[in-house]
Amino acid sequence: MKSQVLKWVESSIFRNFIMSIILLNAATLGVETVHGLSDTTMGLLHLFDKICLAIFIVEILMKLYVYGLTFFKKPWCVFDFLIVGVTLIPNTGNLSVLRGLRVLRVLRLISAIPQLRIVVNAFLDSLPGVGAVAMLFSVIFYVFSVMSTQIFGAEFPAYFGSLTTSMFTLFQLMTLENWASIVKDVMAVYSWAGAFFIVYILIATFVLLNMVIAVVVKVMEGQELDPHTETLNEISKRLEKIEKKLK
Amino acid sequence: MKSQVLKWVESSIFRNFIMSIILLNAATLGVETVHGLSDTTMGLLHLFDKICLAIFIVEILMKLYVYGLTFFKKPWCVFDFLIVGVTLIPNTGNLSVLRGLRVLRVLRLISAIPQLRIVVNAFLDSLPGVGAVAMLFSVIFYVFSVMSTQIFGAEFPAYFGSLTTSMFTLFQLMTLENWASIVKDVMAVYSWAGAFFIVYILIATFVLLNMVIAVVVKVMEGQELDPHTETLNEISKRLEKIEKKLK
Amino acid sequence: MKSQVLKWVESSIFRNFIMSIILLNAATLGVETVHGLSDTTMGLLHLFDKICLAIFIVEILMKLYVYGLTFFKKPWCVFDFLIVGVTLIPNTGNLSVLRGLRVLRVLRLISAIPQLRIVVNAFLDSLPGVGAVAMLFSVIFYVFSVMSTQIFGAEFPAYFGSLTTSMFTLFQLMTLENWASIVKDVMAVYSWAGAFFIVYILIATFVLLNMVIAVVVKVMEGQELDPHTETLNEISKRLEKIEKKLK
Amino acid sequence: MKSQVLKWVESSIFRNFIMSIILLNAATLGVETVHGLSDTTMGLLHLFDKICLAIFIVEILMKLYVYGLTFFKKPWCVFDFLIVGVTLIPNTGNLSVLRGLRVLRVLRLISAIPQLRIVVNAFLDSLPGVGAVAMLFSVIFYVFSVMSTQIFGAEFPAYFGSLTTSMFTLFQLMTLENWASIVKDVMAVYSWAGAFFIVYILIATFVLLNMVIAVVVKVMEGQELDPHTETLNEISKRLEKIEKKLK
Repeated sequence: MKSQVLKWVESSIFRNFIMSIILLNAATLGVETVHGLSDTTMGLLHLFDKICLAIFIVEILMKLYVYGLTFFKKPWCVFDFLIVGVTLIPNTGNLSVLRGLRVLRVLRLISAIPQLRIVVNAFLDSLPGVGAVAMLFSVIFYVFSVMSTQIFGAEFPAYFGSLTTSMFTLFQLMTLENWASIVKDVMAVYSWAGAFFIVYILIATFVLLNMVIAVVVKVMEGQELDPHTETLNEISKRLEKIEKKLK
Repeated sequence: MKSQVLKWVESSIFRNFIMSIILLNAATLGVETVHGLSDTTMGLLHLFDKICLAIFIVEILMKLYVYGLTFFKKPWCVFDFLIVGVTLIPNTGNLSVLRGLRVLRVLRLISAIPQLRIVVNAFLDSLPGVGAVAMLFSVIFYVFSVMSTQIFGAEFPAYFGSLTTSMFTLFQLMTLENWASIVKDVMAVYSWAGAFFIVYILIATFVLLNMVIAVVVKVMEGQELDPHTETLNEISKRLEKIEKKLK
Repeated sequence: MKSQVLKWVESSIFRNFIMSIILLNAATLGVETVHGLSDTTMGLLHLFDKICLAIFIVEILMKLYVYGLTFFKKPWCVFDFLIVGVTLIPNTGNLSVLRGLRVLRVLRLISAIPQLRIVVNAFLDSLPGVGAVAMLFSVIFYVFSVMSTQIFGAEFPAYFGSLTTSMFTLFQLMTLENWASIVKDVMAVYSWAGAFFIVYILIATFVLLNMVIAVVVKVMEGQELDPHTETLNEISKRLEKIEKKLK
Repeated sequence: MKSQVLKWVESSIFRNFIMSIILLNAATLGVETVHGLSDTTMGLLHLFDKICLAIFIVEILMKLYVYGLTFFKKPWCVFDFLIVGVTLIPNTGNLSVLRGLRVLRVLRLISAIPQLRIVVNAFLDSLPGVGAVAMLFSVIFYVFSVMSTQIFGAEFPAYFGSLTTSMFTLFQLMTLENWASIVKDVMAVYSWAGAFFIVYILIATFVLLNMVIAVVVKVMEGQELDPHTETLNEISKRLEKIEKKLK
């Protein structure tokens, strides 16, 4: 019985069926945002949405049944589990937010389409290489955030009133978004603030550049740009044979 | 008869003549935008424009005659056909838009100049490598668009009123254009929106970075940065000779 | 006695203790920025801050004792020395600025965590390669700054009133931040200013791009993207053996 | 006599002297921009400026004397000649512009410092590789400029009133500077303009990305990232010798 369900769960028909349901659900969730839909249409859309949810829950229960505890060792199964789980949060609080969370189900496309899974895995593989640079960035970002809050917080509460506000503003400065007008505002009181923030921008963008380079290097390593490895290994083996014959 | 036309159509004189006509047409289309031209000048420009169009139509008819149905298998012929075809759309609706569409003819320079054709072909070759990352980007972009519309749509119709408006706004956020002011507007109602949009910006720019890397890798592969292939082949041949002698 | 202190100073227990103190100090400095803390809490935070400072001073004195003058030959020791030294500046002038400077102590994490030290060293190693391009950039930046001040200074004092103001504005133009509105302002008086500034933007971003490339090349050289060195050495050794046998 | 002047002109003492004069002149030109200088100081600065100019003219005359017509075959000599020539333009028209042009003399540092000359030569070498992509970019930019002028010119003269205005606006859109507000303005009349301009932005930034890649590839080729060429050539030669011995 269990092996039959397993066969069924891992069949390509089942996978394609689930993928179609996700795609259809994605479409209906998009249609729901259209203005002036009749109540009947809205009702049908909600009904379909609930059917989709039911299918997803049955799918996960089946997988839990056949995989047992190994289910939670498969990252993509856990991913699906969490995403479907979020949708089941009881309907308290802001309704529109909860309706919005249902859309996360469309992210299941990532686990359902193998190519997307490969891409995301490649992304995650490239992250550890960025680790040390990211840590350095965090230290610098934190230092500048606390400093800005302590120095400019009292006079510019809108920009540096609290630690989180400062972090928002410094993130904004790093993206170069409207930085000149913020810096000029602060310079009206502290004339040296221009140097302070330009130093920050230079350091932050330089560290960011190095994070980008780290990602590029990691990705290129994965892609194996160099096609000579095989040829060189072949040459090495041939030389070995020649060596033996000469003995 | 057909072979003579073929010879003529593929001669360099004919190609250079067509290229000159495109360039001249490009110039007159530019001159047309100058303010305060006399009616006579405007009339002459329009006359020349019609002559150019006639030449292009004759060119395409000649090519259709000599190539027959294979005409539609040559991508650049189809490109020329479509561009000239657009200009023949009957003069209904907004006149200035139609006048604007004529300018598309200048794009025929791309099919007329071999170097540009090579560049565009290289671009198109680099696109498939971006496929999976682009698909991932679309999924994420769609999820955030529907979510934003459902959550923020009612309160911020100017930014997230409909699915297309949300897509425009999220594209804008991704280009970092004025993002802080939009996010601050939304944060006035939903204080957690800052985290929501910064997460979106980080994910979107990271995926975008990976699309750029994918293009870079593809283009560099095409350029064959590695100069060792020849040397390695030479080494391989020498080993072969040594091996034969040792037998 | 000295050797015992040395052993103690270089032990991993001591290093981890100092790192914990820096981290704790970083946390309390962050907590200090919270609004509406009671006087007791604030007093405790300041007390802890002074204890941390005392520990850092004792640490540096111990290192000075065991290393003697070689202390000043170790760049990271000098780094720690300067950062702790800044905090001891007498309490004159703006208080909030001085309180802000204490936060610099968190930067000691960079010298305390080996991985961060490696990253920063790699950054500094990549800088000399940028030297010539940076010099070229400085020359161009200086020329445009003086020119802008002399030509536009009288009419646009807010943008080009003095040499430093011009430098700020030209740096802003280079980051493309609000450049169009500045350039349009100037173009209202000098219609050719558009060409002047667009040429500047093109040159500045092109030189900047080359600085980025220089950093990328340096970093990639450090990372040794090429995995063939070993294989090639192996091939070389085999050839040597064959050569010997053939003698 | 001529050979003595030649020896003198090419001596390192002479070159260092000229470089010092350029640097000093650069400094005084910067000082001139300071506000509230006394008339005496200003007079001295102008006097020094004229002395510098005299020295530069004498230098060029000496070079013209010793090199003869080959002077005009040396690009950096022509560069110096043009820059000093610009300063001699008679004092008509806007005075502040003419004073500004004198600052161009500081650019002579590029020809005076060998490292900067190398960098600029490397830049110029990397440009031809960008040729075809730049041509493609020009065609696309021109087509969109003429189209925008013809379609949107009448209703949005501030953005697309003439061909040059359109080019400015499209360049601005390409730098993503305030693009959303411009596009939204146009969309108020032409709702499809959003798609038009987003397509333009995507194409323009994609072509720009490819220009950047072309520069990167050219620069990296110049830097010869691969260190194995020598080793491989050595292996090839050794194999040749082994082959000969086996005959």
